[in-house]
Amino acid sequence: MLYIGVDIGGMSVKAGVVDEEGKILFKDTAVTNAQTPAEEIAADIAALIRSVADRGGAPLSSVGGIGVGSPGSVNDAAGVIRYSCNINFRETPLAALLADKTGVSNVKISNDANCAALGETLFGAGRGAKNSVTVTLGTGVGTGIVVDGRLLTGNQSAGAEGGHVIIKAGGEKCGCGKRGCFEAYASATALMRQTARAAERHPESLLAKMAKENGIDGKTAFIAAKAGDKTAKRVVSDYIRYVGIGLVGFANVFYPEVFIIGGGIGKEGDALILPLKKFVAKNAYGAEFNPPIDVVAATLGNDAGIIGAAALAMQD
Amino acid sequence: MLYIGVDIGGMSVKAGVVDEEGKILFKDTAVTNAQTPAEEIAADIAALIRSVADRGGAPLSSVGGIGVGSPGSVNDAAGVIRYSCNINFRETPLAALLADKTGVSNVKISNDANCAALGETLFGAGRGAKNSVTVTLGTGVGTGIVVDGRLLTGNQSAGAEGGHVIIKAGGEKCGCGKRGCFEAYASATALMRQTARAAERHPESLLAKMAKENGIDGKTAFIAAKAGDKTAKRVVSDYIRYVGIGLVGFANVFYPEVFIIGGGIGKEGDALILPLKKFVAKNAYGAEFNPPIDVVAATLGNDAGIIGAAALAMQD
Repeated sequence: MLYIGVDIGGMSVKAGVVDEEGKILFKDTAVTNAQTPAEEIAADIAALIRSVADRGGAPLSSVGGIGVGSPGSVNDAAGVIRYSCNINFRETPLAALLADKTGVSNVKISNDANCAALGETLFGAGRGAKNSVTVTLGTGVGTGIVVDGRLLTGNQSAGAEGGHVIIKAGGEKCGCGKRGCFEAYASATALMRQTARAAERHPESLLAKMAKENGIDGKTAFIAAKAGDKTAKRVVSDYIRYVGIGLVGFANVFYPEVFIIGGGIGKEGDALILPLKKFVAKNAYGAEFNPPIDVVAATLGNDAGIIGAAALAMQD
Repeated sequence: MLYIGVDIGGMSVKAGVVDEEGKILFKDTAVTNAQTPAEEIAADIAALIRSVADRGGAPLSSVGGIGVGSPGSVNDAAGVIRYSCNINFRETPLAALLADKTGVSNVKISNDANCAALGETLFGAGRGAKNSVTVTLGTGVGTGIVVDGRLLTGNQSAGAEGGHVIIKAGGEKCGCGKRGCFEAYASATALMRQTARAAERHPESLLAKMAKENGIDGKTAFIAAKAGDKTAKRVVSDYIRYVGIGLVGFANVFYPEVFIIGGGIGKEGDALILPLKKFVAKNAYGAEFNPPIDVVAATLGNDAGIIGAAALAMQD
């Protein structure tokens, strides 16, 4: 059986034909206009779905279902997008709209980060795991939680916002307006702030020199640390400790088989993953008696959304 | 259909006949000897089960199943108690032992705090909820998590240890050896420490006077606060803020319908529950758009364990 996975972004919509092994057989992209009324966006998405299905050898009359990942707040069970910062969705019953426009009755929808987490867990870095937490270290920190092979999203899908778990009461201000959130310590944005502060305190460091010459991004501290700079090493180890504290918190409630680390910072590879794995093994509650928890980097890249959305449609 | 619920404690075992509405029809208690070999403890428990079943009008040949709550680390799916600090269980296949000794094939087992949480959610304070987090504020902080009407316990049931989620990186030392755990701020033990510190800093306060005359327990600060003492009011509001920070963390991942607060401190009633509810409503991520989260005090008291264990046996 073949499925259609759709990944809605602020600038474009991607859709693909996906088989039961999570392999994309064909995919394409269409531009979205965020200002377009929701009904028209739905029509554009349906047109892309039809086109991809036709060209991908999966006529809509034969597909097992359509899965959709959308940015914003989604009520999965209702098939409704409550709101989205980037696109003109407000209480939009997108699942019903797409079912109507495509003639496919099985249309599932969830938040895009949740879809990516499901894709990575079932068909990517977590292949084989039934319990995972995917943590995306990007501009913000996103989390996707899989329990017994299915997404955990909370009452009316209002949960799985692990970026806003408080890891330091009274600490750094977060973009959400609260203090001490995981995101305020573990996002790429937070790492850049930590890098800037260290460069200012240690103007003699390589880190400061690099910051002055090229500016700061999420890679600056990792690059300087690899070159042996002490200040940068400290920034990186403090940053990894913060990420680890968040993972340990998730471990102590979910005790997953695997943490999957995605986002821009997730691309740092072993320099990030190995110390994180060690930190979790040392600090998760009861870790000395309990099954080990793996920590791995995400592997599906930009395809995670399409594959995970299709995986959503594969489930009852 | 009737079920048998068993609640194992360090000093005694309680068992009861429970109907499908979570009502205890008959119950009894037997003394346990923690030093007895596991096989003998299992025989004693089986004897209590038989006795309660006979006297409670629920012959074992007719019951729907037996549920057991045990202290310590339990592998629910395997029916095995990995270890327990208080009782002589080490990798003890208690579910199989009890099935063998009672002739009842459906024997389920979980950690006692999980059972109590399931009981409160389905038949107590959370009646009607499908998603809850029960937080027990006692000597330590226990958590029991219900998702879609079932316990969430993590891989091999090693999770649901929410007392050891870190809410203040680098903060107070916890009994588990780590720093900044929720338990180190929100347990009755933590409240007593916070009370003692405040009494020392403010020897002129009513709180200090009470501490000197009667010693300190988990109620001292609440009593002095009710009498209008400023120092005590500050202790209580700081304590409630810490409990709230933990709840908000759980809200942001689980987004439950209800938090159920148990344990000794849970008995403080509105002085605790109302400000907690306000804190969660103000601080949970997206709370202004999402369904409200209720905060209530546990209502089943010491019966929660028996009822929750029986509820476990009622589930597939």
